[in-house]
Amino acid sequence: MRSPVQEYLESIVEQCGGTDGEVASYIPELADADPDGFALALATIDGHVYTVGDADLRYSIQSISKPFTYALALADQGFEAVDAKIDVEPSGDAFNEISLASDSGRPRNPMINAGAITAASLVAGDDGQHRFQRVLEWYGAFAGRELDVDDAIYDSEITTTHRNRAIAHMLREFEVLQGHPEDALAQYVRQCAISVDTRDLALMAATLANGGVQPVTGARVLETTSVERVLSVMATCGMYDSAGDWISAVGMPAKSGVSGGIIAVLPGQVGLAVYSPRLDKHGNSARGVQLCERMSRDMEMHLMHVGRSSNTAVRNRFPLSQVASRRRRPEADQAVLDEHADHSTVYELHGDLLFAGVEHVVRAVVDDSPELAIVDVRRVDDVADVARVTLRGLRAMLREAGSEAAIVDPEGVLRDPDAGSDQASPMFDDLDSAVRWCEDELLRRHGDGPTDEQTLVDDHPLLRDLSPEARSVLDAEMEQVTFTADEVVLDKGCDFAGVHVIVSGSAAATVEGPDGTRVHLVTMHPGTSFGELALGTEGIQETCIRAVTDLTLLRLSAESIERITDEQPRVALEMWRAMARDGYREADRTLRSGIVST
Amino acid sequence: MRSPVQEYLESIVEQCGGTDGEVASYIPELADADPDGFALALATIDGHVYTVGDADLRYSIQSISKPFTYALALADQGFEAVDAKIDVEPSGDAFNEISLASDSGRPRNPMINAGAITAASLVAGDDGQHRFQRVLEWYGAFAGRELDVDDAIYDSEITTTHRNRAIAHMLREFEVLQGHPEDALAQYVRQCAISVDTRDLALMAATLANGGVQPVTGARVLETTSVERVLSVMATCGMYDSAGDWISAVGMPAKSGVSGGIIAVLPGQVGLAVYSPRLDKHGNSARGVQLCERMSRDMEMHLMHVGRSSNTAVRNRFPLSQVASRRRRPEADQAVLDEHADHSTVYELHGDLLFAGVEHVVRAVVDDSPELAIVDVRRVDDVADVARVTLRGLRAMLREAGSEAAIVDPEGVLRDPDAGSDQASPMFDDLDSAVRWCEDELLRRHGDGPTDEQTLVDDHPLLRDLSPEARSVLDAEMEQVTFTADEVVLDKGCDFAGVHVIVSGSAAATVEGPDGTRVHLVTMHPGTSFGELALGTEGIQETCIRAVTDLTLLRLSAESIERITDEQPRVALEMWRAMARDGYREADRTLRSGIVST
Repeated sequence: MRSPVQEYLESIVEQCGGTDGEVASYIPELADADPDGFALALATIDGHVYTVGDADLRYSIQSISKPFTYALALADQGFEAVDAKIDVEPSGDAFNEISLASDSGRPRNPMINAGAITAASLVAGDDGQHRFQRVLEWYGAFAGRELDVDDAIYDSEITTTHRNRAIAHMLREFEVLQGHPEDALAQYVRQCAISVDTRDLALMAATLANGGVQPVTGARVLETTSVERVLSVMATCGMYDSAGDWISAVGMPAKSGVSGGIIAVLPGQVGLAVYSPRLDKHGNSARGVQLCERMSRDMEMHLMHVGRSSNTAVRNRFPLSQVASRRRRPEADQAVLDEHADHSTVYELHGDLLFAGVEHVVRAVVDDSPELAIVDVRRVDDVADVARVTLRGLRAMLREAGSEAAIVDPEGVLRDPDAGSDQASPMFDDLDSAVRWCEDELLRRHGDGPTDEQTLVDDHPLLRDLSPEARSVLDAEMEQVTFTADEVVLDKGCDFAGVHVIVSGSAAATVEGPDGTRVHLVTMHPGTSFGELALGTEGIQETCIRAVTDLTLLRLSAESIERITDEQPRVALEMWRAMARDGYREADRTLRSGIVST
Repeated sequence: MRSPVQEYLESIVEQCGGTDGEVASYIPELADADPDGFALALATIDGHVYTVGDADLRYSIQSISKPFTYALALADQGFEAVDAKIDVEPSGDAFNEISLASDSGRPRNPMINAGAITAASLVAGDDGQHRFQRVLEWYGAFAGRELDVDDAIYDSEITTTHRNRAIAHMLREFEVLQGHPEDALAQYVRQCAISVDTRDLALMAATLANGGVQPVTGARVLETTSVERVLSVMATCGMYDSAGDWISAVGMPAKSGVSGGIIAVLPGQVGLAVYSPRLDKHGNSARGVQLCERMSRDMEMHLMHVGRSSNTAVRNRFPLSQVASRRRRPEADQAVLDEHADHSTVYELHGDLLFAGVEHVVRAVVDDSPELAIVDVRRVDDVADVARVTLRGLRAMLREAGSEAAIVDPEGVLRDPDAGSDQASPMFDDLDSAVRWCEDELLRRHGDGPTDEQTLVDDHPLLRDLSPEARSVLDAEMEQVTFTADEVVLDKGCDFAGVHVIVSGSAAATVEGPDGTRVHLVTMHPGTSFGELALGTEGIQETCIRAVTDLTLLRLSAESIERITDEQPRVALEMWRAMARDGYREADRTLRSGIVST
C-alpha cells in the first residue's frame, strides 16, 4: 500500500517546481551542478526516511556544515569558552559579511563565515588535519554513515576563497584565531567540501530534532543542552539576513548552503532536507525555500505550533478499588479494602515527561491526596530531569502527609537517585504486584494485616461457599503438586488440566506479544488460582504459566472434575455453581480494570 | 497536601533574590513603584495558576502590551496589510530606537515603539477612542477578566513622552501612520497604562501557549496562525537588543515592560509572568531575567526541548482478533473470524495529532496493510489540519487496496469533510460497535454474511451446548419481556435478576465515572446477554442497563434459576456448567482486550 505521506510529498514537489534563481558560480566546481538536480528527504525521529527525487545524489555540504562544527566546538570546549570567541546575535548581514564586533573582533554568530571559521578552530586537535578528522567523523555520526571529502571541490575552493582568507587573517589580527590562519582556513574549506546526499542531511537534521540521538543508530551524538543552543542559533541566524522572515513564515530552525541544500528541524518531530542548486538573492536555494514554506504551512510544522504535551502525561487515573489484585481476599479483608481502597489512587503515566506533563501529574496527586498512590511509568519514554526532581519532591510531600507511592517501573526509567537506600520508593515490575502491596498496606493500616497464606488457600472462592459435604469431597480430590523455579506448569495450547490453587511460591502468566516477544501479564501468589479460564476457551489453555520461585499447588484435576460431575451430581452442582460465580467475578474484575484503562 | 511545584517556585524565588538594577524613572509615576515589589505566576494551559509573592499587585502593562495589540492588528487587517506597514526582523536596537527602514519608513518590527504605535493604528475602529476600547476588551479576553486603565500613569506619560511623539510624527511623515499622529500616540500611551497584575499576565501568556484559547474561559481569542506569528516575533524581537542571547539562554518567546513585568511563553506547556521593577541596562526586569533563566535551565523549559510527540499518537495497535465483539457468534461464523480477524487491525490514537503523530499512524497502517482497520480517536484532543488531510489520504489509499477504516469518534473530533456523503467512513460511538461492523464485513467477505438474529439467540453459548432435555426445560422457563427506548432494564445496585438475552433492539451498559458522569461502556445487540455478571458480585448488579431502542428480551429469571437448581439437579448441573464456561469465556475475552489496552 502506498503511503499518503509519500503521495503528499510528491504532490507538493510537483507544485513547487520553480526554476527561479541561479546556480552558484563563485566556486568554479559548484557552477557545474545540474540546475535541475532535485531531492527532498523527510526523516522522522524514529529513523524512517521519505524521499522524493534523487536522494542519493551527492554534493558538498558547504554552509550546512556550520551548525555541526559549532556543536563540536561546544562539545569540546564548553559553552563559556566558545561564547568568549563567538557571539549568538543575529547580524542581519549577508553570509559573507565579516560582521566582527568592532572592539573585540568577536564574530556576531557561528552561522556567518567568520564565526564558522572560528568554530572550526575551536575543535579539539593538534592541528587543522587532526581537527578535520574529528569533524569528518562527527558529521558521520549525525548522518549514520562514514562520509568523505570531494577533493575537486576543495581544490577549486581553496584557491579562490579570497574573502574567507581575508576573514581568517582579520580574525588572527584580533587574536580570535590562534596559530596560522591558513591552517584554520584549510580546515574550514575542507569541511565545506564534505560530500553528502539529501538523505544524509535529513538524518543529520533528524538527529537534532531527536534531542541529539541519531534516529537510526540510536547513538547519542550531542547533549540536549548543546542541541538547544545549536537550534536556537539556527533559528535566529541560520537563514542569513532573512532570519525574522524565516522564523515567522517557516518557523523551523534551519541552515542553507551555497551548493543548494537546506536543512530544517522541527524539534521532537522531523528533520527535513531539500536540494535544488538554483539560489535566490540571499544565497538560499530558491526552490528549497519555497518547499519549506509550503510544508510548514500545509503540515503545520511551525515551532510555535506544538501539541499540548501535558494532556497526555496522565494516561489514566483511577481508585485502587477499581483494580483489585488477583489475590483473592477473605471476606473480612475484602470488607476493609472495600471501605478504604477508594482513597488510594493509581496513576498511569505515558509519553515523555517534560515540565508541563509532570506538573499535571503532581497536580492530580495533590488534588487527590491519596492515602496510597501507585505511579505506573511503564509507558513513559523519556524523563526530563525536572520531572525526576519534581517526582522526588512529590514523594517527600506524600510522606509528610503519611502517604506512600508504589512505583511500577520494570525498565527503571525513573532512575531514582535514592534507589537502594531506605528512602527509595517501593518498586514493582507489574501493576498487580503494586496493587497487592497497597492492599497489604491498607490491611496493616486499617485491619489486622494481610491474612496468612494458608487461610487464603482455605478461603478460596471456589471452596469457601461449599457445603461441608461438597468441601470434603473436593478436599479429598485435590492433590498437592510442586514445581521448581522456572518450570513450565501449563503451556500455552495445552488441554484444560484443572484448577490450580497456589499454596506457596509464585507463578507468572505470559502471552506472546504481537511481535513474538513474551509479554508478562501477572505474577500470582498464594491464594490465587489459575487454569480455570481454559473452560471458557474450548478447553484450551491460552497463556503460559511458569513457576517464578519453587511452587506448591493444590490441583483439582480435569479428571477429578469430570468424575465428580458424573458420579456426584449434588456435589458437582455446587462445584459448577461456585465456578460460574468465580468466572463472572473474574469477568467483572477484569472488565472493571478494562473500564478504567480504556 | 502542599504541591512540590509550589515549593520549587518558592525556593527559586528565594535563591534569585537579587536587588540589582534601578526602577524606571523616565515616567514620573513609574518611579514611585516599590523597588521590592515582587510576584511570580505560572499558568498551565488548563488554567491552573501557581503564584509566589503579591500576584494581585497592579501595575501598568507598558510594553508587554505590544504583542497583544500586534495580534489584534493581525486579526483585524490580515497578515499582508500588517506586513506592508511593519517588518518582522530583529533590529538589534534598544527599545526606544526609531529603527525605521531608510526608504519606506517601515518599522523593523512590532516590538519596538515605532512598530507598536503603528500596530495600534492598525486596530479597526473609527478613531483612537474606539480603537482603544477594542484593545481594552481584547486584553481582557486574554486575561479572562475586565481590565481598566490607570489614569495617573496615562496622564504622567502622555505629557513626557517626547521620544514617542517624535516617532509618531516621523511615522506620519513617511505615511506609515494615517490621520493625526497624536490620535495614535494617545491610544498607544493609554494602552501602555492598562492596569494588570501578575496573574493576569501569566494567563495572557498561557493563552498564547495554549494556541490562542484562554485556559480558564475556554474562549478562542486568537487564531493559531496568528499565535505562531506573534510568538515568532516575540522570540526574535521581544527582549530588545539581547534577542540572540535570550533565545539561547532562556529559549522562550517573551516580552518585557518598563514597569518591571516579563511574560514568557512555552508553547503547549505554560505561560509565565514575573514582576520586579528594578531594570537592567537593556530595560528588562533584572530579577525577572534572572528567574526566567533559572526556570528555563532547571525546568527544561526551552523551546527547542520538546517531547517526542509522535511517540504517543498511537496509544495501542492490535489485531481485531484480540478484541472480539460482545456479539456471540455461532461456531461457523467464529471459525471464519478466527481465520481472518488477524489481518484487520485496531489503532487507538491519543493526544494532539500533529504531523509527526499522524505520520506515525499512517506508517503503522501502511506497514500493516490491514484488510479492515478501526481507528479509535476517542482519546484524541486536537487534530491539526495536516492530520485531517493525511487521514483522508490514508482512507483513499486503503480503499484503493480494497480495505476500509471504521472510525470510533463519538465527539466528532475528526470533522470529516465527507461526512454525510457516500465517501464518508463508517462512524461509531463505541469500539464494540465498530468491531461488530468489521466482523460482519469479514463474514460478508469470507462467509455467508452475518448470521440472522434469531439464530444468534438460539445459538447463545448458555443454551447451545445443553442436552435436548435441559434445553427444553430452559426454553420453557424463559419468558419474553419488552422495554421501550430509554427505559432502564436493570439499575445499578439491584439484585441479580437473571440472565437476559437480547432478541431484538439494542441496550447500553453504563457506569458512573469517577467524576459522577455516565460512562458508556458498550452497546449490546441481538444474541448478546446481560445480567449474569451479578452472579460474580455477590448478586448485585454493578452496571446500569438501559434500552437504546425498543427492546425484546428472553429472560431466565433468578427465580427460575433457583427453582431449576432446587428441583431438577441434572438440568441445573448442565446449566451451571454452561454458566461457568460462559463466565470464564467472558473473563478471558475481557482479559484479552485488557492485555492489549494496558
